[in-house]
Amino acid sequence: MSLPWKRLIRFRAADGRILRGEPILPEGDALDLGFVTEADKLQARVIEGSDIYDVTGGTRVTDEIVTVKEILSPIAPSDVPILRCVGLNYAKHIREAGRKPPPFPFIFFKPNTCIHDHGSAVVIPKIAQNDQADYEGELCLVIGKDAKDVPVESALDYVAAYTVGNDISSRKLQRDPAYAGTVPQWGFSKGFDTFAPLGPVLVAASEIPDPSKLQLKTVVDGEVRQKESVGDLLFDCRYVVSYLSQGTTLQKGSVIMTGTPGGVGAGFTPPKWLVPGTQMDVHISGIGTLRNSVVFA
Amino acid sequence: MSLPWKRLIRFRAADGRILRGEPILPEGDALDLGFVTEADKLQARVIEGSDIYDVTGGTRVTDEIVTVKEILSPIAPSDVPILRCVGLNYAKHIREAGRKPPPFPFIFFKPNTCIHDHGSAVVIPKIAQNDQADYEGELCLVIGKDAKDVPVESALDYVAAYTVGNDISSRKLQRDPAYAGTVPQWGFSKGFDTFAPLGPVLVAASEIPDPSKLQLKTVVDGEVRQKESVGDLLFDCRYVVSYLSQGTTLQKGSVIMTGTPGGVGAGFTPPKWLVPGTQMDVHISGIGTLRNSVVFA
Repeated sequence: MSLPWKRLIRFRAADGRILRGEPILPEGDALDLGFVTEADKLQARVIEGSDIYDVTGGTRVTDEIVTVKEILSPIAPSDVPILRCVGLNYAKHIREAGRKPPPFPFIFFKPNTCIHDHGSAVVIPKIAQNDQADYEGELCLVIGKDAKDVPVESALDYVAAYTVGNDISSRKLQRDPAYAGTVPQWGFSKGFDTFAPLGPVLVAASEIPDPSKLQLKTVVDGEVRQKESVGDLLFDCRYVVSYLSQGTTLQKGSVIMTGTPGGVGAGFTPPKWLVPGTQMDVHISGIGTLRNSVVFA
Repeated sequence: MSLPWKRLIRFRAADGRILRGEPILPEGDALDLGFVTEADKLQARVIEGSDIYDVTGGTRVTDEIVTVKEILSPIAPSDVPILRCVGLNYAKHIREAGRKPPPFPFIFFKPNTCIHDHGSAVVIPKIAQNDQADYEGELCLVIGKDAKDVPVESALDYVAAYTVGNDISSRKLQRDPAYAGTVPQWGFSKGFDTFAPLGPVLVAASEIPDPSKLQLKTVVDGEVRQKESVGDLLFDCRYVVSYLSQGTTLQKGSVIMTGTPGGVGAGFTPPKWLVPGTQMDVHISGIGTLRNSVVFA
């Protein structure tokens, strides 16, 4: 897809407006938008038009330059029909855990009510505060045009952009028989409000010709917890898009979360659960760092 | 909620328009809208206004009377944020299957792309045509105003209406290790386009003071397969709404599918899978019959 922008942020401008824009980066693009604060006085060219995936010319980067006060999620929740997510997808992590690789992608959904701003605290609801809240750093794809029954070969043509996501999860509700019963639950346990922070930026697919070259790293309270190449995905991006589209319309704006590597809090002895004040930084090379803290409701 | 209508259908009128309306029923309300055909020349008063859950008076039943050609799903897919579904919820069915009742509702999601018209054929995609497609008759609730952290006592205040649903499911993709791996999958296997027929009518909650009194019956190719009182629900409607709203915004327009009783195709020996031409009638007393046939893509 040939989009009118290469990097897109949604932000609160210094004048209070919530806008979309193309950030004006210093030469070399070395700036990590995830670490930008108001003091940096980041500037952006305002993007005009309601459909950010528009390829007809109706959406465009204007000459209006504004100062960014606060970066939000790059996509508003109401612009995302649903999040389609892959579980158990990093090969080394599966082997380490002594699991058998699944024959096909393991799929679950998160409602768009989960979407949360970069920079805002994830809110753990009362029901998930008892030693179970966890992070999962993930590469996310954004579908730019409706896709159905697409072959693997052309699947990436439907991907408009990439961003970083954090699949916040409640482990007891997910897999403790006292909460989940005899069947693990991937819906409710991962579906609370604020449980899908996204950001800090959408990077157009044209800027990432091969997502398998990306490197993912999750740092929690300064400690590197997850570090893996996206190339370790058991089912890669093009396969996942094609598989998900079988018999199914992947609507424009849908987000696909591709799975998380080893190093989640539940995997440590003792486990390292999210508590009020925990700071989570999910970094992906070429995109930036999604930063969120944690509060208890 | 005090809605401006008691029964609402969405339909193609004789003049080709797609409209919403309050059906004009013969005295006694004995007519099952699910069995209405064009030949019946059913009439309806047109409902004006885009928000069918509006209680401010902006939406109203007009005096314009039109003839119904074809009843569609009572809610357009784009008006439903998501379908939140309960698995394993009929007590007798759980006991019969030798399962232990889950401690809390088992929750999964279906995307709104699943929603399908009453009267239209469910389309089984290639990936699910190998002896695994199944029906699940269910009572559905429609949320009429955003709900979050609502107590059990007031949970039904957020329910605008009831309708009938059929949670079409692919059993191999759901639980055969050769397809699903070691963890049962409730997302992909139930998430294909057309896999959530709804209808034939929304019945306002004011008309159904106690949903536990409703009777559900699924008839497939003339054979009664499921027959149970909604009163057998392990987690009843008010509990399910309250539970689902914990830490979670149940958005206006969301559909909740409350679970299915025993008698699905997978439970027979040999199993009775959906094949091209199968006719499924899901009947709930006080609402009507949701009728769909089956085709293979």
